[in-house]
Amino acid sequence: MFESAELGHKIDKATYDKQVPKLRADLLDAQFDMGELKKYQVIILVNGVNGAGKGETVNLLNSWMDPRHIQTHAFPPPSDEERERPFMWRFWRALPPKGKIGILFGNWYTDPIVNRALKKTKNADLDQSIEEINRFEKMLSDEGALIIKFWMHLSKDAQRKRLKALEKDKDTRWRVTRTDWTHFEMYDKFRAVSEHVLRHTSTGHAPWIVVEGADERYRALTVGRILLEALRKRQKIEQERGWKPRSAAAPLPPATDSRDLINSLDMSLAMSKKKFDKDLEKYQGRLNLLTRDPKFRERSLIVVFEGSDAAGKGGSIRRITGALDARQYQTIPIAAPTEEERAQPYLWRFWRHIPRVGRVSIFDRSWYGRVLVERVEGYCQEGDWMRAYAEINDFEDQLVRNGAIVAKFWLTITAEEQLKRFKEREKTRFKRFKITDEDWRNRKKWDDYEHAVCDMIDRSSTEIAPWILVEANDKYYARIKILKTLCDRLDDALR
Amino acid sequence: MFESAELGHKIDKATYDKQVPKLRADLLDAQFDMGELKKYQVIILVNGVNGAGKGETVNLLNSWMDPRHIQTHAFPPPSDEERERPFMWRFWRALPPKGKIGILFGNWYTDPIVNRALKKTKNADLDQSIEEINRFEKMLSDEGALIIKFWMHLSKDAQRKRLKALEKDKDTRWRVTRTDWTHFEMYDKFRAVSEHVLRHTSTGHAPWIVVEGADERYRALTVGRILLEALRKRQKIEQERGWKPRSAAAPLPPATDSRDLINSLDMSLAMSKKKFDKDLEKYQGRLNLLTRDPKFRERSLIVVFEGSDAAGKGGSIRRITGALDARQYQTIPIAAPTEEERAQPYLWRFWRHIPRVGRVSIFDRSWYGRVLVERVEGYCQEGDWMRAYAEINDFEDQLVRNGAIVAKFWLTITAEEQLKRFKEREKTRFKRFKITDEDWRNRKKWDDYEHAVCDMIDRSSTEIAPWILVEANDKYYARIKILKTLCDRLDDALR
Repeated sequence: MFESAELGHKIDKATYDKQVPKLRADLLDAQFDMGELKKYQVIILVNGVNGAGKGETVNLLNSWMDPRHIQTHAFPPPSDEERERPFMWRFWRALPPKGKIGILFGNWYTDPIVNRALKKTKNADLDQSIEEINRFEKMLSDEGALIIKFWMHLSKDAQRKRLKALEKDKDTRWRVTRTDWTHFEMYDKFRAVSEHVLRHTSTGHAPWIVVEGADERYRALTVGRILLEALRKRQKIEQERGWKPRSAAAPLPPATDSRDLINSLDMSLAMSKKKFDKDLEKYQGRLNLLTRDPKFRERSLIVVFEGSDAAGKGGSIRRITGALDARQYQTIPIAAPTEEERAQPYLWRFWRHIPRVGRVSIFDRSWYGRVLVERVEGYCQEGDWMRAYAEINDFEDQLVRNGAIVAKFWLTITAEEQLKRFKEREKTRFKRFKITDEDWRNRKKWDDYEHAVCDMIDRSSTEIAPWILVEANDKYYARIKILKTLCDRLDDALR
Repeated sequence: MFESAELGHKIDKATYDKQVPKLRADLLDAQFDMGELKKYQVIILVNGVNGAGKGETVNLLNSWMDPRHIQTHAFPPPSDEERERPFMWRFWRALPPKGKIGILFGNWYTDPIVNRALKKTKNADLDQSIEEINRFEKMLSDEGALIIKFWMHLSKDAQRKRLKALEKDKDTRWRVTRTDWTHFEMYDKFRAVSEHVLRHTSTGHAPWIVVEGADERYRALTVGRILLEALRKRQKIEQERGWKPRSAAAPLPPATDSRDLINSLDMSLAMSKKKFDKDLEKYQGRLNLLTRDPKFRERSLIVVFEGSDAAGKGGSIRRITGALDARQYQTIPIAAPTEEERAQPYLWRFWRHIPRVGRVSIFDRSWYGRVLVERVEGYCQEGDWMRAYAEINDFEDQLVRNGAIVAKFWLTITAEEQLKRFKEREKTRFKRFKITDEDWRNRKKWDDYEHAVCDMIDRSSTEIAPWILVEANDKYYARIKILKTLCDRLDDALR
């Protein structure tokens, strides 16, 4: 990977001075164009060897382009709010919205490489990180982001010279730390690990660009030209035909007989009011105790509610919150995304509501909207909802590995029961129970929704975050099943 | 304040059971109405004596209304991200958007009261806090928020009984801590401080409602009814005539002669290219050193740029960022507010960009938009921009007290110079320099803007955050004046 970046590339001052003014003007224009279009964001990663000019490159890009539309993020040790959430949370926070450029400096590559070189992790861990990174970047790219990854490289000899030169100059001496020299001693180790990582994360949608960092002018011109090229190419695609990620999704067939997960449920399950009252008290009490368990202070609980209209999500949520201290939970009703949310990758608006430890987040509808309503109503492309299954599994995997307990409930009612509830609601005095035209429209797509739900469960019911199907024709039965399941899940997790 | 809340109020079970169902239904309806209208947010503060049912009240409101549209916030010890910003930052973060209810539990009243009772602060500090709170709540109310403040009270005797009862029951024992008893020993002290605070913060727009907390049913019914009443009253006003804060602003007259701050500037000030090059290097070097000074790690720098179109804000910003490490600063271009920002009080969108310590935020246009473009173009009411001067002074005061260095630059050019620059820009190849129709339109209001600028400087140039007027007909002169001023401000602050 690094051979061409150890050739001693150089640009003389005359050539540099001649080329820079046009390059800067072109970069500014390209930045302006993408900022006007607001169709995609540019994510620039800057990584590489110490002393190879990473910081200089970031500063240079800021000075060549309009810094008002560049968001530069470095990642010093995480804050406590960051430490209490999955590793990737801080990077999600730093993603630029469409129309902007984000320069991420010391990003999701830093920890995996450094930890492996320092032998804090094993090869298997590194390979897992690589896989996760590849899936993450694929998702960003599929969501429309233009990703440009620069690796600033120096040969061992060049790095020694560079560190010495920096130390010699009183203005730059502060930049060389003891850690830099310790890492230099491990140059070969770092090189091997980096090469492994680069080789396995250089993908078609986000290839690495290795830049020799020894000569400042060569480095600057190279980075500037590659960036300009990438911006122009993407802009051209957007203008000519609109950018679309490639999708090669096989169609999802419905079951070849008429049996499916939903219509196999026993919808006659019910419970008496008397038993309900008794059980409600019992399980609410247990849930309250569990969320006050000292062990829960290091965990978090994420509850997801999905279900047909009028299946009783709101009522079930209130039976859970009734057991909790209001200071401990947030309920998040998912409606149409806001403008700021629409300018980000799909999952961004859920990441922002991930709870800190010791907290509960209850989602009334969720990230599954993409494979349910968006799929059925055609709000997104087939490729988008097809890839969502894998993205969602990744997302939940990160939550669980960080200590979250994820409970997902699908509330099922029969078409007849829904009709009955719609009619009841139309008569009721509570305004919040208004039936909208949309509710009636959704009903007509009952079979499409059922098909989507079965696919969703097949593809996203995992061992770490299984779907719980709730037969909800009878509200008492449904609410107790939900409360009991939640208690059991918490019990298992905290034991 | 507390007399009526020590009478031993009680509601019998029969009355309670009879009244609650209708109250709950009405509350739900009222919540639904305000949620549909999305014209204002409801901010409920819950404070009071330990054991008086604060937590129970919060939980009750969540169970009576739809918890999906209530955001409950408690305020445990601040996170490091919160500690590095002004005291009020965490409360701004927790404000509900229009259409939602926010319950703030342990809010901006807690620290001032507790600290005074424990003698960590003096009366003068408390009175300063009271003033700040009053101004803050007045601002919230003027911005449209409906503020409801509940103080849950217990007589000394009732508190003793209550704490003992909680301790006796094994399910509630955990809730009584040693601190609770220590505070109980200081009941009289707390009572005196609280009474002082309540008396001085019970305003027309945000009066305290003291609720006797001894009887659970009385407490619940009282809180529920008051809340319902408040919601209905406000909803009625919105429907009948639209809610408007009262404004009794005296008009701001222009100067009675034609001299003003702007036309008194010496617009012939200029600098040679040679001196500029020398000074640029000198001051950029100094600025770089200053922002790397160890003392700066405990401070932050907030730079505000305002000025006529084409006055050279962008170029000046690039001369500052050119001296800084891109990892250390963010530039924030202020354009039209997003949907999420429009649902919050005016200053919210600036609070969200307040830097942590050791960081620099550069605002390209700022919170002064309200008293400039919004005033001149009539985007807000006279009352709104009139009160903005005081609100902005409060805001900057909080920034400075938290250690921020606030530098505000107004870039002035003459009308002739602007015309020249517009014409040059129309010829230039850089697309980012496009002149829009709006630019030409703004030019026609030159005198109105000048008047607004002079008022702005008179009313918001404070000792802690003075305006620096920059004669910007000559770009070299302007840029050096800005850099030098910044260096001097930093020098003073860090010395």
